Amino acid sequence: MTARTAPHDDPALIEYGMQRLDWTRSRMTMLANVRERFIKAQPFAKTRIGVDLHIDVKTAILLEVLKAGGAEIVATGNFGSTQDEIAAALRHQGMTIFGKRDDTLDVHRTHLARIIDHTPDIILDNGADLIATAIERGVERTIRGATEETTSGHMRLNEDYAGKVPFPVIVINDTPLKQIGENLHAVGESFVESFMRITNLMVNGRRFVVVGYGWCGRGCAKYLTAFGGRVSVVETDEIKALEAALDGFRVGTLERLRTWGDVFVTATGRPNVISADDISRMRNGAILVSVGHFPWEIDLSGLRARASSTRVITDSIERFDLAEGRHVIVLSDGRLVNLAGINPKGNSIESMDIGFMLQALSLERVSAGPVDGLVHGPQAVPDDINRFIAREMVAELSRGG
Amino acid sequence: MTARTAPHDDPALIEYGMQRLDWTRSRMTMLANVRERFIKAQPFAKTRIGVDLHIDVKTAILLEVLKAGGAEIVATGNFGSTQDEIAAALRHQGMTIFGKRDDTLDVHRTHLARIIDHTPDIILDNGADLIATAIERGVERTIRGATEETTSGHMRLNEDYAGKVPFPVIVINDTPLKQIGENLHAVGESFVESFMRITNLMVNGRRFVVVGYGWCGRGCAKYLTAFGGRVSVVETDEIKALEAALDGFRVGTLERLRTWGDVFVTATGRPNVISADDISRMRNGAILVSVGHFPWEIDLSGLRARASSTRVITDSIERFDLAEGRHVIVLSDGRLVNLAGINPKGNSIESMDIGFMLQALSLERVSAGPVDGLVHGPQAVPDDINRFIAREMVAELSRGG
Amino acid sequence: MTARTAPHDDPALIEYGMQRLDWTRSRMTMLANVRERFIKAQPFAKTRIGVDLHIDVKTAILLEVLKAGGAEIVATGNFGSTQDEIAAALRHQGMTIFGKRDDTLDVHRTHLARIIDHTPDIILDNGADLIATAIERGVERTIRGATEETTSGHMRLNEDYAGKVPFPVIVINDTPLKQIGENLHAVGESFVESFMRITNLMVNGRRFVVVGYGWCGRGCAKYLTAFGGRVSVVETDEIKALEAALDGFRVGTLERLRTWGDVFVTATGRPNVISADDISRMRNGAILVSVGHFPWEIDLSGLRARASSTRVITDSIERFDLAEGRHVIVLSDGRLVNLAGINPKGNSIESMDIGFMLQALSLERVSAGPVDGLVHGPQAVPDDINRFIAREMVAELSRGG
Amino acid sequence: MTARTAPHDDPALIEYGMQRLDWTRSRMTMLANVRERFIKAQPFAKTRIGVDLHIDVKTAILLEVLKAGGAEIVATGNFGSTQDEIAAALRHQGMTIFGKRDDTLDVHRTHLARIIDHTPDIILDNGADLIATAIERGVERTIRGATEETTSGHMRLNEDYAGKVPFPVIVINDTPLKQIGENLHAVGESFVESFMRITNLMVNGRRFVVVGYGWCGRGCAKYLTAFGGRVSVVETDEIKALEAALDGFRVGTLERLRTWGDVFVTATGRPNVISADDISRMRNGAILVSVGHFPWEIDLSGLRARASSTRVITDSIERFDLAEGRHVIVLSDGRLVNLAGINPKGNSIESMDIGFMLQALSLERVSAGPVDGLVHGPQAVPDDINRFIAREMVAELSRGG
Repeated sequence: MTARTAPHDDPALIEYGMQRLDWTRSRMTMLANVRERFIKAQPFAKTRIGVDLHIDVKTAILLEVLKAGGAEIVATGNFGSTQDEIAAALRHQGMTIFGKRDDTLDVHRTHLARIIDHTPDIILDNGADLIATAIERGVERTIRGATEETTSGHMRLNEDYAGKVPFPVIVINDTPLKQIGENLHAVGESFVESFMRITNLMVNGRRFVVVGYGWCGRGCAKYLTAFGGRVSVVETDEIKALEAALDGFRVGTLERLRTWGDVFVTATGRPNVISADDISRMRNGAILVSVGHFPWEIDLSGLRARASSTRVITDSIERFDLAEGRHVIVLSDGRLVNLAGINPKGNSIESMDIGFMLQALSLERVSAGPVDGLVHGPQAVPDDINRFIAREMVAELSRGG
Repeated sequence: MTARTAPHDDPALIEYGMQRLDWTRSRMTMLANVRERFIKAQPFAKTRIGVDLHIDVKTAILLEVLKAGGAEIVATGNFGSTQDEIAAALRHQGMTIFGKRDDTLDVHRTHLARIIDHTPDIILDNGADLIATAIERGVERTIRGATEETTSGHMRLNEDYAGKVPFPVIVINDTPLKQIGENLHAVGESFVESFMRITNLMVNGRRFVVVGYGWCGRGCAKYLTAFGGRVSVVETDEIKALEAALDGFRVGTLERLRTWGDVFVTATGRPNVISADDISRMRNGAILVSVGHFPWEIDLSGLRARASSTRVITDSIERFDLAEGRHVIVLSDGRLVNLAGINPKGNSIESMDIGFMLQALSLERVSAGPVDGLVHGPQAVPDDINRFIAREMVAELSRGG
Repeated sequence: MTARTAPHDDPALIEYGMQRLDWTRSRMTMLANVRERFIKAQPFAKTRIGVDLHIDVKTAILLEVLKAGGAEIVATGNFGSTQDEIAAALRHQGMTIFGKRDDTLDVHRTHLARIIDHTPDIILDNGADLIATAIERGVERTIRGATEETTSGHMRLNEDYAGKVPFPVIVINDTPLKQIGENLHAVGESFVESFMRITNLMVNGRRFVVVGYGWCGRGCAKYLTAFGGRVSVVETDEIKALEAALDGFRVGTLERLRTWGDVFVTATGRPNVISADDISRMRNGAILVSVGHFPWEIDLSGLRARASSTRVITDSIERFDLAEGRHVIVLSDGRLVNLAGINPKGNSIESMDIGFMLQALSLERVSAGPVDGLVHGPQAVPDDINRFIAREMVAELSRGG
Repeated sequence: MTARTAPHDDPALIEYGMQRLDWTRSRMTMLANVRERFIKAQPFAKTRIGVDLHIDVKTAILLEVLKAGGAEIVATGNFGSTQDEIAAALRHQGMTIFGKRDDTLDVHRTHLARIIDHTPDIILDNGADLIATAIERGVERTIRGATEETTSGHMRLNEDYAGKVPFPVIVINDTPLKQIGENLHAVGESFVESFMRITNLMVNGRRFVVVGYGWCGRGCAKYLTAFGGRVSVVETDEIKALEAALDGFRVGTLERLRTWGDVFVTATGRPNVISADDISRMRNGAILVSVGHFPWEIDLSGLRARASSTRVITDSIERFDLAEGRHVIVLSDGRLVNLAGINPKGNSIESMDIGFMLQALSLERVSAGPVDGLVHGPQAVPDDINRFIAREMVAELSRGG
């Protein structure tokens, strides 16, 4: 069947993709161990896994591990983000991968439907798109179980499909391992790296205003401070604001800090937290940047309306000229800066190793069929899986003392 | 009535106590604001508050504030910790304070009974001793409400008195404000201060093994690292161990680290986490110290049995001579080091300002009689009180930018 | 004359170069101020400046400022590093720029000679190449003064041309402003950024061995620690080793640490500090990387001789397979990693703003002709220039409090 | 002779002194090693050492080591600081120790003369008092050599006794080992400890203004920041101010920062750097404290003149009431706070171990008589001694990895 669906990929594209996988695979040490075990145990023998997941150099390693465990993989990427050389490399390994980077949204939707048409036994979902498709087509009873990567997929299952999911769905994102490993440390570190990579500005001595003191915001504040940045925090939740103040940060309103900062970092998950009016009062040359998931935290349309001219100076750096000869800078169009600019790397390989271990072991658990502790519908990652991964990662970091 | 129960305190003792209160009172700025409001609003008019609480220079300020709000105070200290000059200063202000430092346990118990005999309207309890006494005497229906300072009091109410408490009891200790303000920051900072004050040793460059990565343990690890200490962590909970590793600490077993450390810090809340066998393998001159609440984390009786001789070198420093000319040092007899040695200060005034704001506002809430949101039996601090205090503290820290 | 020497540059190349200059120019705020002053004061009126300097997006801003001050610029880049679009953009502005990236060494030498043939009044030199050429051609008496960027140029003037330089030469590199602004902070920060950009590995929790505790080494150690890395230091100078130990680092020999580290960072300036024998004993997957100026600190030829196979996995990451299935990784072929990989940015714009302020003001000083305090031959940057720049930079960083 | 001069010390005083020495002696590990070597080599056999040095629990260990090396010790303390129990303990060990804490200045001077009357072979001096006395009495030719602890003694020898000292004098204080080990780390850490011990205030989140960014000032700034303090720096030297700004501190004038800070720390070595006018504009409750050697950095007499009333609230905390109901707090009367309050410990034992190693080895060197590398008059500690001690200290800190 694979042969029927795979396009005839360019050998050079395949080779490029295979080469890119090499480094990442060699550094996902926990997944490498699981792969060895899966090869022997074949937990996914005769099992087809339907996958809806961003297709890139890291997720590819997860798919390889599932395949090594006996699974037949039928997958599509997220809309607009498929890395074609990685898709080619995975097809070359015998997986069925639908889609390419420049597919339209309509085409993307047909891929979701095609995956369900392949009657997967297990689903690895993202935003609950595959589960929703299965239920809409009335084939949900053929599915043994699923994992769901996102919190928003979790909410969708609770709100739109409550009581309608006749199999267990393990939700990956809400587990503390993800919050700590990924949101605090990996996002914080890669934010600083991305800021420097794109702007070539120094961090030490610069004034940063971090808006939002959730996991991502405190990661940014922590690592900017570590680099000698002078950091103030804006946070509307009183308890988090106190944490920030006790952590040593100046805490204030944006109204007060907007004339103080050199750089403004949004990490709230909410729209328009920095308004065009705020921006118009910032100092000349102020820089705005977001680490939030959605590209809406900075009111860019308001800013464009006020700007006398705008210009992309260089990759991911846009200049907005305002009144009185003043200007501000917006990085990466207000989108998540960790994935922007030339050669972005996103979160560290190790943090993704944690995230995909959660996927691999949760999929193994649902694949095992009815087991104690699993119920129908969405649920947390089983505690023993969290603890196993934590123990493995500590052992990895503590090899050699 | 006060006149009847108060001893004739020495005027010099009173003056000394009054003077000691001065500095602390001037730095508890949130309580000072509440005091102003209480003086006008008199939330405790015609209300008698029965108090069982450590009597020291900080708690005294709380009692003053309650009295300023109209309360009649009838109080006793914890067993063995009453600061006599502070008790004298409070009596001088017209409160009824039972007990002195060298009371026997039997005498202490009679104080608890006498407080209940005074028929308090409200109770400020510690370990649920007053509530238990009231229930045992069958007078619990005369009580309007209570606060309970400790987690162990909370557990006692849940286990021994479930369904038997006919009034609301707000439990102070479990609120996040206490965990953050007191256990993470205040304990961590005062641990480092106490270690230096007692030993006069430098922190930078020294090897510390922190056993336990709960709030107190991570406070110690964080602030020791901040001072240039080289810190390793022992933690049996896998998730916390991963947090420690990702925070940059070496994580290992005590078996492995016991030959590495210069200083061992216990913060687990559990008995005998460092055994005499562990100690016998430590390097010559190793130092053991505890920040746990109970003096049982280091197996001192086992150590005494093995030691060829022991000797208190100087205040709070005891030397245990072992085989082969080796010795180890134990600080403050394995008791909470933050309160040990000459001139211990314990947690910062500001962190106690937070803790006593929780008490003052929770007592005001239960004093107001039946209100929405309060139920009978133990319960968390109402969310709006937490948020109010957090907002006040942030404002205090952010005055002036 | 410019017309005679300038090639007919491609307009697209010119535009690309002009665009790249825009961002950097807007962020070199101190140089922008000097430019305004130079435009009015014309300190280089009727003055030809011969330049031998790496031609890139930052140095270009310095040349623009000199030209704005009235100078005629006759310049060549360093051998092998000229950025052609920047050279084109500078020619487009009317400067005489010789050379392109792929010139041979012989051709590069003819450029040096041609600059001297243009009879410059002042020289901005690099490695003393232009000064040496002038002396060899016997035209040194026509030169009013010079600056020399490097310490090695300083040594060459002292050793080979002592007493032969009939004009003042201000040596830029040895001033404390460069050591602090560039070597400690800028190199340290950009090392961490480069490591993450190239490897996508996390820093927190990883074991790093920094070899050399000079300015660059302590910058790396400081900023790796700030990111939660566990850092050990190898340093043969006893005083620096003590500084490292008191700064909280484990200090040891490479022999002892080679089996401990995950990543080895060389910053010594000396050849073969990590031998092939050291490497053969490192743990599987160990990573080697250099921040030293010369690509000789890691014994790569020895390593190649021992490796059973080598392979460039991806940009700037090379894998060396050793005996028993083990391998090590070398980044950027052992060359200065801050300038390696895709999209390297090197030191921060602000640190280069400091460095080029030193150049601009020192050139202005020698251009003014015989002045008090300048002598013939190499000498330090005048103290008042250092202090002026320090004051400006502090003011820049402290705008707004 | 000892018997003739020693008073009949109280046995209890002797025992108390001996006990206090125990802990410090056991933690000065480098001196302990030297003591073992001295016992065998007897470098001071038949040598009388005249000593003028603060007599406390740390210096006592140095004197014990010199005596173990064969020296006859004839010593006096500094004016006003002799710890009587330590003097008693040293007399008990057979040393000749003149003076007690409450000696008048005239009596103190007679002690200096008596030491010279004992015709010492070697001098351990402090402020050059003994050397000056010897020269004034014309007996300087009987002296083999000396060490001088202080920079001010060094200056006095250069200015008042240039060319008049016919023996080598090794000056201890100016060596980098002292600057790093003592002024940066030990003063910085013990400042934070003393601030907390005296005030019981938290550091995290508080606003500190550090005046002076020399070694002591940067030690305070570094360790306050490490504890989560928000630190600004005032520094008039432009280069140091830039270092502070690049280290991530806000840098400003006192005029600007005096309304911002909660706590003001002086570390300049200069008089009246905080004027009464500055103080009168500080916020209500501001705290002033000095880590400078001389008690003159805060203009206390000006402040007393303006205050409507002053009051010592508690040990080392004095309150000054100003106009409009405002007040400020001064710690320890503006004297070096690290030695103030109840139970001050001063610099760490380890940092003093470094300082006294410099003394012990330098005295051994001058005792050896004319050797290569030593000249008459004041000079730096020989490089090999610095390096030996650095190596020993690194080894001590790195035992066990």
